[in-house]
Amino acid sequence: MGKLEQTLGRIGVLDREAMRAARERQNRLTKPPGSLGRLEELSLLVAGIQGTPRPDVSAKVIFTLAGDHGVVQEGVSAYPQEVTAQMVYNFVRGGAGINVLARHVSARVVVVDMGVASDLEPHPEILVKKVGCGTKNLAQGPAMTREEAIRSLEAGIEVFEAELVKGLQILGAGDMGIGNTTSSAAVAAALTGLPVETVTGRGTGIDDARFAAKVKAVAQGLALNRPDPKDPLDVLAKVGGFEIGGLAGVILAGAAHRVPVVVDGFISAAAALVATEMEPKARDFLIAGHVSVEPGHRAMLEHMALKPLLNLDMRLGEGTGAALAMEIIDAAVKLLNEMATFGEAGVSEAL
Amino acid sequence: MGKLEQTLGRIGVLDREAMRAARERQNRLTKPPGSLGRLEELSLLVAGIQGTPRPDVSAKVIFTLAGDHGVVQEGVSAYPQEVTAQMVYNFVRGGAGINVLARHVSARVVVVDMGVASDLEPHPEILVKKVGCGTKNLAQGPAMTREEAIRSLEAGIEVFEAELVKGLQILGAGDMGIGNTTSSAAVAAALTGLPVETVTGRGTGIDDARFAAKVKAVAQGLALNRPDPKDPLDVLAKVGGFEIGGLAGVILAGAAHRVPVVVDGFISAAAALVATEMEPKARDFLIAGHVSVEPGHRAMLEHMALKPLLNLDMRLGEGTGAALAMEIIDAAVKLLNEMATFGEAGVSEAL
Repeated sequence: MGKLEQTLGRIGVLDREAMRAARERQNRLTKPPGSLGRLEELSLLVAGIQGTPRPDVSAKVIFTLAGDHGVVQEGVSAYPQEVTAQMVYNFVRGGAGINVLARHVSARVVVVDMGVASDLEPHPEILVKKVGCGTKNLAQGPAMTREEAIRSLEAGIEVFEAELVKGLQILGAGDMGIGNTTSSAAVAAALTGLPVETVTGRGTGIDDARFAAKVKAVAQGLALNRPDPKDPLDVLAKVGGFEIGGLAGVILAGAAHRVPVVVDGFISAAAALVATEMEPKARDFLIAGHVSVEPGHRAMLEHMALKPLLNLDMRLGEGTGAALAMEIIDAAVKLLNEMATFGEAGVSEAL
Repeated sequence: MGKLEQTLGRIGVLDREAMRAARERQNRLTKPPGSLGRLEELSLLVAGIQGTPRPDVSAKVIFTLAGDHGVVQEGVSAYPQEVTAQMVYNFVRGGAGINVLARHVSARVVVVDMGVASDLEPHPEILVKKVGCGTKNLAQGPAMTREEAIRSLEAGIEVFEAELVKGLQILGAGDMGIGNTTSSAAVAAALTGLPVETVTGRGTGIDDARFAAKVKAVAQGLALNRPDPKDPLDVLAKVGGFEIGGLAGVILAGAAHRVPVVVDGFISAAAALVATEMEPKARDFLIAGHVSVEPGHRAMLEHMALKPLLNLDMRLGEGTGAALAMEIIDAAVKLLNEMATFGEAGVSEAL
């Protein structure tokens, strides 16, 4: 049995007993019951995921996976393809948005080359898990083979497992890849059944001409490749990307190892959709960090019945929204653990 | 000229030149322009408030002001009045929700007795600025005199100024006071002109009988006292509270000293409304940390044209929503200051 099947088979369910015990403690803390709203819900969810009434999410990791996309040939992006590689160097030098936010929330950033188009200069902090030098153009044929799709998923699982042993209690799934909102829109349309126009957005901020080219490329890719919506691996292979597959692997591994998975933006939501279509039980281990301005992001979250924590009109990716959300989840867990009970504080309860 | 007039007279406008310089830098950072959404807007706003293109909000203070309310005689709360004092002790022992969140975001908590009903045991961390031992019952007559309203505002200004010299770059306005959602609903109705039913909520989670008593108490208080909506001091005196007045003073002082003011929940929004009705220029120095489940909270934010950062169904007060929001504002400022520019990182710009 391969790593992928092992991981899928290991995904369990939330620990209801841990959640019940956490709820019981929440109700004894010095506040009106329920007055911390979603923070209380989050603390229970993390208790259920980690299987303990006193969870801990101190050890935080953001996985920022990079890959290139052949579909950029269709003129779908405002940025040249070399930006993917340039941003990978920016990540390991600490100058990107995700670096600033990861420092802010005390998270490690794990940077992975899942399939950047060029060969990157070796760097101790760039993990190389290259499945290929960019995908093929999905508007002209399948983005990758089924074997490559499996390899990208298993690479993600390996990346997760290597970090787990270093200490990992919550993860954020982030991405980098010029053209990857196009692939993600195709994945979203294929797996939700929604119209291409509904799930395709402006990405980095493209003009009307590029937007028209993008919608056309997605529609053409779907018509030509006919990905099978019942087979998420087929969808990933035909219209996905190497970093999307890698992120789906990270997400499945997180669920398998009972680590809360914070989904970032549009691309990691597409990966989460692939993951949850492969194993619906993975869904309960996900927390939607935010909802971006990409219309397909909200559509996928609704499809997975995930309610985003933040809505700050972000659309950067890299794991930036997940990093901010992690800090709120950490706050929720600390409230559960550190607040005094009515008894401890000598505070009167409700009349 | 009194402290209040001095403070009101000192409130200026946003520094447009600092905001322009901050925008110029934002546009050179390694991300598509605008892709950080509200985080970019926040960084510009803080630049405009602090009057520098490279702002800093490291030194964070939450002001948690406590006061009691005579209107509890009308049976409007689920908790007995002694909880106000008990929670003040909980604050200084570090066991309350705000303590956990303040530690999480590295903020100091300044606890002030603005008018708790009982005399508290002296404690080095309880600032005593008692205007009275709880307000009078607003449903039976004015909550306080006009002189007491002014004293509460000036006490808030003094509390702020004492902290400013210790280092204070952003503040959160928080509250504690059994019965204070009733007073805040009355303030909201008086100053927005909205119906009592629209701005009155369930507070700590009261049942239908107490909710009916609460709506009746607010309506009766407004009918009996006839606060003048053109005179915010009159509204504060007749239907407000000592901690609401104190928070309005803190807010005005923050604006006067160009410190970003993070408004917390329903009670601090009522204080912000009093403050902005006294000096509309103060509004530009406010950031709405979150929107709570109290319907009057949203109504007041809309009245002030403030868009909340978070929406987590919280309704605890104490400054808890402001603390979480501060961390996001700090992240926004760090992104502005610490991200690499396209030039520094050698990343290609848009085509």
